[in-house]
Amino acid sequence: MVHHLTNWVTIYDCAQVVKSLGASPVMAHALEEVEEMTGLAGALVINIGTLSPAWIEAMFLAARAARKAGKPVVLDPVGAGATRLRTDTSRRLVEEGLITVVRGNPSEILAVSGQASRTRGVDAADAIRDVQAAALALARSKGVIVSMTGPEDLVTDGIGSRSIRNGHPLMARVTGSGCVASALTGAFCAVEPDPLKAATAALAVWGIAGEWAARNNPRPGTYQTLLVDALDEVNAAMIRERARVG
Amino acid sequence: MVHHLTNWVTIYDCAQVVKSLGASPVMAHALEEVEEMTGLAGALVINIGTLSPAWIEAMFLAARAARKAGKPVVLDPVGAGATRLRTDTSRRLVEEGLITVVRGNPSEILAVSGQASRTRGVDAADAIRDVQAAALALARSKGVIVSMTGPEDLVTDGIGSRSIRNGHPLMARVTGSGCVASALTGAFCAVEPDPLKAATAALAVWGIAGEWAARNNPRPGTYQTLLVDALDEVNAAMIRERARVG
Amino acid sequence: MVHHLTNWVTIYDCAQVVKSLGASPVMAHALEEVEEMTGLAGALVINIGTLSPAWIEAMFLAARAARKAGKPVVLDPVGAGATRLRTDTSRRLVEEGLITVVRGNPSEILAVSGQASRTRGVDAADAIRDVQAAALALARSKGVIVSMTGPEDLVTDGIGSRSIRNGHPLMARVTGSGCVASALTGAFCAVEPDPLKAATAALAVWGIAGEWAARNNPRPGTYQTLLVDALDEVNAAMIRERARVG
Repeated sequence: MVHHLTNWVTIYDCAQVVKSLGASPVMAHALEEVEEMTGLAGALVINIGTLSPAWIEAMFLAARAARKAGKPVVLDPVGAGATRLRTDTSRRLVEEGLITVVRGNPSEILAVSGQASRTRGVDAADAIRDVQAAALALARSKGVIVSMTGPEDLVTDGIGSRSIRNGHPLMARVTGSGCVASALTGAFCAVEPDPLKAATAALAVWGIAGEWAARNNPRPGTYQTLLVDALDEVNAAMIRERARVG
Repeated sequence: MVHHLTNWVTIYDCAQVVKSLGASPVMAHALEEVEEMTGLAGALVINIGTLSPAWIEAMFLAARAARKAGKPVVLDPVGAGATRLRTDTSRRLVEEGLITVVRGNPSEILAVSGQASRTRGVDAADAIRDVQAAALALARSKGVIVSMTGPEDLVTDGIGSRSIRNGHPLMARVTGSGCVASALTGAFCAVEPDPLKAATAALAVWGIAGEWAARNNPRPGTYQTLLVDALDEVNAAMIRERARVG
Repeated sequence: MVHHLTNWVTIYDCAQVVKSLGASPVMAHALEEVEEMTGLAGALVINIGTLSPAWIEAMFLAARAARKAGKPVVLDPVGAGATRLRTDTSRRLVEEGLITVVRGNPSEILAVSGQASRTRGVDAADAIRDVQAAALALARSKGVIVSMTGPEDLVTDGIGSRSIRNGHPLMARVTGSGCVASALTGAFCAVEPDPLKAATAALAVWGIAGEWAARNNPRPGTYQTLLVDALDEVNAAMIRERARVG
C-alpha cells in the first residue's frame, strides 16, 4: 500500500498507475488520520502540486510518522522555484531529514538545492553540468537520493550515480507524467529496500512504458490511455531487453 | 440531478457516469451552499474517500437537508476500518438515520456494522457467511439498504436479499469502480422510489457495462474508457438478456 | 503559462487541453502563493465549480494581482443561478472590475447579469432573444466580454457580437466541456491582446476539435480521449477551412 498526499490535478493518475503495478494506492490528508494511514502503508509519496498550509501540516505529520516507522518517503517538489511557499516547503521537508527520495525536474532540483540563482551556464552543456553538480551536492549534503528526470534521467546518492535513457518525447505532452514518475518511485520503494535501486527501477519502467505506448505514434489523448495499458504490459523480459541504465 | 460530496480521486468519473445515464451530476461541498444544492437534487451521494473535518460537517448538513426533504442518501464508506476517522464518520451518519443505502466492499461493510473484529472465519466459505450475516444485521438494525459489492454482489434490507452476479475481474483493476457503483446507485435512487430495487438495478447495470467493456480483453487504461462507452450503450434489451439477479 | 483556480472535477482536463495547445498550465490556490503565481502567468482562469470561502478569498487575491499587472482574467461562473454563493461570488468578481471575459452557458450568464428571474420567454425564439439581450447588457454595463456557449455560441463586448456555429452535440455528453472552453479562452487571452478575438478563437478551435473528434461517431468515453487528440491535431489550415464565425 502506498499512501499519497498529492495534488488534485493528477491524483487519479497517481492512483491508477500504482494500481497498474499491483500495489494499492490510498489518498488521505486529514490531520486526524494521516499518521494512522501512513502506519498502514509501505511508503509515503508527498507531491506539493496544489499546496496549502493545512496540507503542509499534514505532510509533515505523515512524513514524521513514516520516518519514525522506518518507511521511505518520496517528495515531488512540483513548482519549487516558482513560488516561495513551494521552495520553502520542499527545503524544510529535506532539511528536517524526512525525505528518502526527491524526484523532480532540473529546475525543481536546483530550487531545492538552493543553487537556482547560480546556475546560468553559458551553453547547454555547461547548464547540464551545473544541474548535475547541484543534484549530487544536494544528495550528499542532505543524505537523500535525488532522482532528476529529463531527456536523460539521473539518480544519485551523492557518491554513485545512475543514468536512465528510457522514455519518449510524447511523455512531456501528457499532464502529470512527472507526478506519475514520483508515484511509481513510491511504489518501488515500498518493496525494494535500497532507495537508489528503487528510484532507478521506477524511472526505467516508466520510460519503457512511455516508449511502448508511443510505438504507433498516437496523439496525446490516446497516448495517456496507452501509458496505463503499457504499465500493465511491462514485464521482466521487456525490462531486461529495453532498459538503458548506465 | 445527483448531488455528490465525494473524493478528489474519482470525482471526474463519478460525474461522467452519472452524465452517461442522462442524469446531471453536481459537486458542491461549501457549508454555505450544500443544503441549497441538495434542495435542487433528486439524490445525494456521500463518498468519504478524501475526508476532512470541514467536509464531514458539510456531509452532515447535506444529509440532514436531504432526509428532511425525503430524498435518498447513498453512503460510500471508502476506507472504513482503515482509520478511526473513516469508521466513526460512517457509523455516525448511519446511526443518525441519515443514510438510505450503504454501498461498500465487504471489509467496509464489516467496519460500519461494528463486526470487523469478530469476523475471522476458519475458511473462505465461513468468512463469506460471516460477512453476509453482518450485512443483514446492519441493514435490519439500522433500517438501511446494504449494497455490498464483490465477486458476487449482495443487496439487502435485512429481511430479503438480492444477489447480482454480473461484472468482470478487470473492474477491480480500475481505480474508482466502487465509487462509480455508488454514484450510479445515487442516480437510480433519484428515479426509483424503492431503494432496494434502485441499488440492485445500479449494480446490475454497472456489472453488465463491465462485462460489455471487457469483451475484447483490453488493458486497464483502455478498459476505463470503454466502461464509460459501455454505460452509454447498455439498454433495456441488454439488461433483460444479461442481468443475473437472484 | 496559464494560472487556474478551478474546480476539482475537471481540473485534469483543464490542464491537459492547455498543454495540448503548447501552453503551460499551473494550478495554485493557497492565499500564500496565488499572487506570486499569477505574477508568473500570462492569464488567469477562475472556475467556481467547487467553491468554498477560502477559495473565494484566493480568487479575489489572484484576480486583483492579475488586473494590477494588466493580465486578462477569465471567469467560468459554473452553477451561477443554482446557489446564492455561486451567483453572488460571480457577480462580485464582475462588479469589482476584475474580469476580462465571462464564459458561461445561457442560464449562468442570465444569473450573472441579474436578469434570471425576468427571462421566461413564451417560446424558444423569445427565450433566445432575451438571453442574447441579457448577454449584451452585461457586457456593456460591466465592460466585460461575454462568451456564451450553446448550440450557437455568442461572443460580445456589448457593442459588436460574433456568433460561432462550430461544435457537436456529443460535447454536451462529456463532463467539463464548458470548463475546457474557459481554460482555452484563458490560453488564447494569454497570447492575443484583444479579448473579443481571443474568446472567439477559443470557441472556434474547441468547436472544430469537437467536430473532428466526432467524425467516427464515438461513444462518450472514447470521445473524451479523441477531443484531446483533436486539439493537438487542429492547425491553421483546418481553422481556415472549418471555422463558422459570423
